[in-house]
Amino acid sequence: MSTDASAPPTGKGQETRERIVRAAARLMFERGVTGTSTPAIREAAGVSSSQIYHYFSDKQALTKAVIEHQTQAIVGGQEQLLGRLDSLDALRAWRDAVVATQRSLHYLGGCPLGSLASELAEHEPDARTALAAAFTRWSEAIRDGLRHMIDHGALGPETDPDTLSLALLAALQGGLLLGQTQRDSGALEAGLDTVIERIAHHATPNGP
Amino acid sequence: MSTDASAPPTGKGQETRERIVRAAARLMFERGVTGTSTPAIREAAGVSSSQIYHYFSDKQALTKAVIEHQTQAIVGGQEQLLGRLDSLDALRAWRDAVVATQRSLHYLGGCPLGSLASELAEHEPDARTALAAAFTRWSEAIRDGLRHMIDHGALGPETDPDTLSLALLAALQGGLLLGQTQRDSGALEAGLDTVIERIAHHATPNGP
Repeated sequence: MSTDASAPPTGKGQETRERIVRAAARLMFERGVTGTSTPAIREAAGVSSSQIYHYFSDKQALTKAVIEHQTQAIVGGQEQLLGRLDSLDALRAWRDAVVATQRSLHYLGGCPLGSLASELAEHEPDARTALAAAFTRWSEAIRDGLRHMIDHGALGPETDPDTLSLALLAALQGGLLLGQTQRDSGALEAGLDTVIERIAHHATPNGP
Repeated sequence: MSTDASAPPTGKGQETRERIVRAAARLMFERGVTGTSTPAIREAAGVSSSQIYHYFSDKQALTKAVIEHQTQAIVGGQEQLLGRLDSLDALRAWRDAVVATQRSLHYLGGCPLGSLASELAEHEPDARTALAAAFTRWSEAIRDGLRHMIDHGALGPETDPDTLSLALLAALQGGLLLGQTQRDSGALEAGLDTVIERIAHHATPNGP
């Protein structure tokens, strides 16, 4: 395999970099950051150590790229789903999809971003800051979905989308951690349903 | 320092064992289980390696003892607080105490049980089972507090304490993780307040 040591991160170089990040993201999800070694990434990505070190000066740089990758994969995906919220039925469909995904994964691993946060928050200040920003982006996506529902008349103008979006993210993160630990969806469903019932309390009588 | 290698775990032996567990619990809270070495525990507890190995055959056995210790310290304490719930004001005072504790800790470390769960759930089946039981005990303490409020007429008989207790624990765990990551109490307060508002929806007009 040729080395990308002199190539800019475009074309084949970009593809190699992404393969490394995807492999590292999967391993860090399965084993944690501490449990993920350079040889394991090398083998999983099918690259050489020099290729890894070409793109990432150290493990912190690679971990930063994994956080960016997971933020885009998870929060980016959530933004697509949540941005289109126009009814309580749509919010409940999002809730059903979250629960179904965890069930299909047998509750393994919890939330990749939540797990990275728990492992790194106290020891990697840059990682903590990046993960805090990812969670803020996530709660803002929920907030924007709720605002969209207010604008479209599904929720009354007295609804507080800032508080309710933070509450829904807290219930989601706690529910994912409890689901991972208890291997069932009880706490996840109870948490999401309770916050959604609170949101539904603001439903307009003639809303969509 | 004398060795306890032949002593039963009573008196001085019991005290030595507890000193090891308390030191390990603190280090695992600060550094994670993987980041906690036997030499660090030895130094923090002021014991010899042979004393540690006398009481704990391996790190898994010590980790199990730490989970038991944290479960008793945290969930045991919560049971005392939650068992006496007799009004919404008491529930809100519990919420205020949780938030005040996190603020006084500067949101460092999150929940010791939640952090252990995130680190160990996929790699230590016995630890996962013990932590799942700890969370069940915690949600049951909340459930019993809500039942107590129903029995005393503070909440109507239609209240669902099983769902609401799981929801409150999910909001709490998610809020603690988000607080640890974002170094503020926004998500914790929003999550607890939203579930408590949902509980307050069942308050009886003439309740205590």
